[in-house]
Amino acid sequence: MNPLTSHTHLFGQLFAVPQFETLWHSDRFITAFVNFEVALAQVLGTVGVVDAATATAAARAISEFQPDLDTISAAALHDGLPVPEFARQLKDFVDSSALPAVHKGATSQDLIDTAFSVILRDANQLFEAQLTELNTALSDLEAKWGTVPMMGRTRMQAALPITVGDRVSTWRLPLKRHAERLAGLRPQVEALQFGGAVGNRAALGDHGEAVAVAMATALNLTHRPRASHAMRENLADYANWLSLVTGSLGKMGQDIALMAQQGIDEIALSGGGGSSAMPHKQNPVLAETLVTQARFNATQLPAMHHALVHEQERSGSAWPLELMVLPAMVTTTGTALTHAHNLISQITRVGAAD
Amino acid sequence: MNPLTSHTHLFGQLFAVPQFETLWHSDRFITAFVNFEVALAQVLGTVGVVDAATATAAARAISEFQPDLDTISAAALHDGLPVPEFARQLKDFVDSSALPAVHKGATSQDLIDTAFSVILRDANQLFEAQLTELNTALSDLEAKWGTVPMMGRTRMQAALPITVGDRVSTWRLPLKRHAERLAGLRPQVEALQFGGAVGNRAALGDHGEAVAVAMATALNLTHRPRASHAMRENLADYANWLSLVTGSLGKMGQDIALMAQQGIDEIALSGGGGSSAMPHKQNPVLAETLVTQARFNATQLPAMHHALVHEQERSGSAWPLELMVLPAMVTTTGTALTHAHNLISQITRVGAAD
Amino acid sequence: MNPLTSHTHLFGQLFAVPQFETLWHSDRFITAFVNFEVALAQVLGTVGVVDAATATAAARAISEFQPDLDTISAAALHDGLPVPEFARQLKDFVDSSALPAVHKGATSQDLIDTAFSVILRDANQLFEAQLTELNTALSDLEAKWGTVPMMGRTRMQAALPITVGDRVSTWRLPLKRHAERLAGLRPQVEALQFGGAVGNRAALGDHGEAVAVAMATALNLTHRPRASHAMRENLADYANWLSLVTGSLGKMGQDIALMAQQGIDEIALSGGGGSSAMPHKQNPVLAETLVTQARFNATQLPAMHHALVHEQERSGSAWPLELMVLPAMVTTTGTALTHAHNLISQITRVGAAD
Amino acid sequence: MNPLTSHTHLFGQLFAVPQFETLWHSDRFITAFVNFEVALAQVLGTVGVVDAATATAAARAISEFQPDLDTISAAALHDGLPVPEFARQLKDFVDSSALPAVHKGATSQDLIDTAFSVILRDANQLFEAQLTELNTALSDLEAKWGTVPMMGRTRMQAALPITVGDRVSTWRLPLKRHAERLAGLRPQVEALQFGGAVGNRAALGDHGEAVAVAMATALNLTHRPRASHAMRENLADYANWLSLVTGSLGKMGQDIALMAQQGIDEIALSGGGGSSAMPHKQNPVLAETLVTQARFNATQLPAMHHALVHEQERSGSAWPLELMVLPAMVTTTGTALTHAHNLISQITRVGAAD
Repeated sequence: MNPLTSHTHLFGQLFAVPQFETLWHSDRFITAFVNFEVALAQVLGTVGVVDAATATAAARAISEFQPDLDTISAAALHDGLPVPEFARQLKDFVDSSALPAVHKGATSQDLIDTAFSVILRDANQLFEAQLTELNTALSDLEAKWGTVPMMGRTRMQAALPITVGDRVSTWRLPLKRHAERLAGLRPQVEALQFGGAVGNRAALGDHGEAVAVAMATALNLTHRPRASHAMRENLADYANWLSLVTGSLGKMGQDIALMAQQGIDEIALSGGGGSSAMPHKQNPVLAETLVTQARFNATQLPAMHHALVHEQERSGSAWPLELMVLPAMVTTTGTALTHAHNLISQITRVGAAD
Repeated sequence: MNPLTSHTHLFGQLFAVPQFETLWHSDRFITAFVNFEVALAQVLGTVGVVDAATATAAARAISEFQPDLDTISAAALHDGLPVPEFARQLKDFVDSSALPAVHKGATSQDLIDTAFSVILRDANQLFEAQLTELNTALSDLEAKWGTVPMMGRTRMQAALPITVGDRVSTWRLPLKRHAERLAGLRPQVEALQFGGAVGNRAALGDHGEAVAVAMATALNLTHRPRASHAMRENLADYANWLSLVTGSLGKMGQDIALMAQQGIDEIALSGGGGSSAMPHKQNPVLAETLVTQARFNATQLPAMHHALVHEQERSGSAWPLELMVLPAMVTTTGTALTHAHNLISQITRVGAAD
Repeated sequence: MNPLTSHTHLFGQLFAVPQFETLWHSDRFITAFVNFEVALAQVLGTVGVVDAATATAAARAISEFQPDLDTISAAALHDGLPVPEFARQLKDFVDSSALPAVHKGATSQDLIDTAFSVILRDANQLFEAQLTELNTALSDLEAKWGTVPMMGRTRMQAALPITVGDRVSTWRLPLKRHAERLAGLRPQVEALQFGGAVGNRAALGDHGEAVAVAMATALNLTHRPRASHAMRENLADYANWLSLVTGSLGKMGQDIALMAQQGIDEIALSGGGGSSAMPHKQNPVLAETLVTQARFNATQLPAMHHALVHEQERSGSAWPLELMVLPAMVTTTGTALTHAHNLISQITRVGAAD
Repeated sequence: MNPLTSHTHLFGQLFAVPQFETLWHSDRFITAFVNFEVALAQVLGTVGVVDAATATAAARAISEFQPDLDTISAAALHDGLPVPEFARQLKDFVDSSALPAVHKGATSQDLIDTAFSVILRDANQLFEAQLTELNTALSDLEAKWGTVPMMGRTRMQAALPITVGDRVSTWRLPLKRHAERLAGLRPQVEALQFGGAVGNRAALGDHGEAVAVAMATALNLTHRPRASHAMRENLADYANWLSLVTGSLGKMGQDIALMAQQGIDEIALSGGGGSSAMPHKQNPVLAETLVTQARFNATQLPAMHHALVHEQERSGSAWPLELMVLPAMVTTTGTALTHAHNLISQITRVGAAD
């Protein structure tokens, strides 16, 4: 949709680091879909919906399934989603005797939402490491320069002297709280989705709850007593977290860009960006990009909240809106954290110029 | 700015219930400012910044202060905020001997942010009661109609039968989680702001921390080790919560408006709205309004995230943006919760038409 | 909903100038409703839907109608809008013989949308004058200081010298284009709304078009061949214009706030704002407020675009969303233009410090 | 950043048609950059900044330049943009005697903004054809079914009977106005950007204006008397248009999804989407997607308005925000227009069910 923001594009490295962007590649979804179906087949045997042999045969077959991606991609335009065609191909692929253990009681949204949970789990592990790393870098910065005086500024006017530590702590402290928030959010978003056609696990009769519990265990995801096909507030809450993080980094970026101004000179950066017309310039590129990324995520966030108006048992208009914005917010946040760390490492001096 | 949305306007009762709108009236701020200054004067005596007699005299004088609101309001245009003129008048009002205990170590943002904390505390108490009440109403609805069958619908098409309980639980369950979220957020937003001119409590020397601790106790607010003049993520996080609540209510409203369609007839409401051209109509006014309010809050939310890009020690552009949107979001959420409860009480039948 | 932003509030003069906020008061709507009904009664006589005597009697009676505002306000919560109760009261008020000429063929949305058209016409006349005035002030600024050198800055770094005129022209030129855009938009938004219950003027049979044409003439509004109850793009387009204006002013405000920094000193302002803690400060309050207002309007704008998804013949969820944001955007734009003019008049020096 | 929305992804065909997505590929930018530099070299000769032989030699060399894309892409992270490295490579590539005619008087933003102009020109031509085609399809629909009765619905309740033509005209009429708006916008956005380092064409002395005029002619773009590096309202205005279009299509999609409900049955569609759990379903996938796309573009729009707060002569934070959202909005609009046309062609019946 916007190739400029891919890390493979001429403009893209500013907007996307590969380790986050690739989380969202098609193969990651296919793997997650297959893992879901394998776990389902196995669990159906365990709880006795199908016999053990059928379950085992189905799980083995599914694990060897190689879908035709082009056909799935084309069918997504017709079905609105890739899973119906994925399921059709999968059912064609397995032996008919194994069919009772394939996709039984599941629906498209179960596979896709669970794939998101798995991908977000990976993203969250990266985020935790990034937050720790950035926190350390800022602590080191404070340790080195914290007592150096600089001018405190309010309403963009010189106010009273502060220390570098006063300023830097306003960059660092929110990150600590964001890490705590993330710890609380992870179980909410790293959850199994399993509700079936209309979200009530009815196709599995009395076995619904047991299957869901066992699948959550098998896939190492949180169990929910009720499928959340139409209750999307956990994802909106998570999107809010992403934008809180980039917002805090944007404040740091804005401060650094202001400190780097000639005439203010409160910070020195190595490796500033060049200009095609003015080779002498040392532009605070990463600092400014953090502001851009803060505003980008702030812009996206309401889409996740509009998506809460998710009519009936499954919305074909609210749900795809999440798909259009949440991955971009995740990638932006991961990229901003990388930029922030690189930016801090570029600092060679901070505090009053003289 | 938008008189239509005041409960006193011809259009306004749809948009604002008085108990929330009046939380934001000028007198509430003046009371909060006065309480702040009284507490500060007393605490300055307690910790020994001023002698006890001065503190007591100052506190007594401040508590009798009646500011000239018109002059303050006019000065806000010049100063950007009402507190500088409030402080000027206050200092004129008290006896000069008491001045060492007046506004000492405080800044405009300390008073205003703390006033917000106090107002939000009142709002949060109302929200808790509203959530409990609405949760009860929905539980009663489920108790009465929960086993009645109705059609499950996905992508706005009939899918498979569900029960009324399946549908209603998707309205009720998020509210429970929102109540839990609110409990976690309250200490974050019901906090004392006390940092002084540049946020580091420097004007009080070694007494800064002690004064802040004692003031938080006196005002029954959370103490923060570091003032958050320029770290605004708690308020953005809270705004997110407001929009999560209205988003969940918007889903309920959208469902009810769809259920009330002729030809669907899955719900009957008493007291529907009338039309000037078609007196026979029974419009699901409150259901539709919940959708409007969800989209309104979703729209406002990014402003609170843009405000995270809060440059230096105090931003004169980011901070007022909060003032322009957060009160509107609070009032909208309280009004939506009232509407939701009234809407549920209008339901006379739910489930399959026949 | 948000009392802080009313010009009567302690905080409000920063956010709302009276001449724009009062455009939206209840009495303005009542006057517009009455004028609509008077014109309708007269026109119904002219085109022969009712006889001349009935039309004249109805028009005279309507023009003397004094509605009970409290009852209307309370009914708006029930009906979703004030017009049904207004029409009930009006029909009670006029002699029964005049009833055939009262509200005939009209619906709530006709009265309300037309009231908006009338109010926007007044706003637009104010905007035109403001744009002219501000353009003159900026031209005068260029005339006085335009050749003074200053540093051109890109990516917040000194680049190459420019003149004050180079910078100021980037503030002035967009205003000229905004004035041209407004001239094109005025006929679109200053239009009669007249469509009746379902928007097709069916209640007036063959007379529908003639009535609409005559009413547009009588009320000095644009005639539309088709009522736009459910086609809202003109208002969304207008909201875009409002945000374009504040966006351009925000650029000017941001530039001025940056120029006013100590160490940069490229501008001197008289009458800067004070601080309660630091009386020595001269804060560029109006400059920063322009940035706030730009971000506020940018934030509101998507609500007007979400409202384009206006289902069927009249949406009870999309339409009220317009009511919640458009007046606020108009008031903000008018206030920003006033602030901008005052800000320019505060400039006592611009260009290189030495 | 969000691979899901690429047409090559498993999910992507719903979100991006290739003819729009590929407009934004790296090679399109390289071609535009090369064309800019060729035109500049030639024009520099024409106006006499360099001699004719140098101009011709430079133009010939530039036209044969094959940049190293990987190095450019990597350098974009450092410089914030790909052009500085592009220009470095280009200068290395041409013979040193031709250097006076290479990139003379130009800056990164000149090349990138002009590349956008060229790409938008292509997009706009596609849009014009799509709008014409869709308008025809809707006219044909009205011609075939326009007099069939159906229920007019207001506030999601049956109101009074209308015709299919009444409803369909609310889908068609805005498209006509959007086409007119586009005709007015095209010269604004299909414009040469040429301002040099700080936007005033100073590097070319008295030749600046002549070079700009001749380049605009050579590249078939609009000439602007003043470079718009820091005046971005034309692009924000264009983004508004994109969202107006998808908003109007979203209204159509919402109406069709509501008409397709069982129990309403006012429309029949061929080729509805399937479900992995409920093969019997015929989901109105494209109708719902139009709603999604309307809300997506509405969500993105404010970013383009925040980008109006473009500080000084070139903002490194505001400008990249445009790059992150405008291409996505263009692709979404083109895709929505394609979906809309396909959706209309799926209609096999419209109007009252019986």
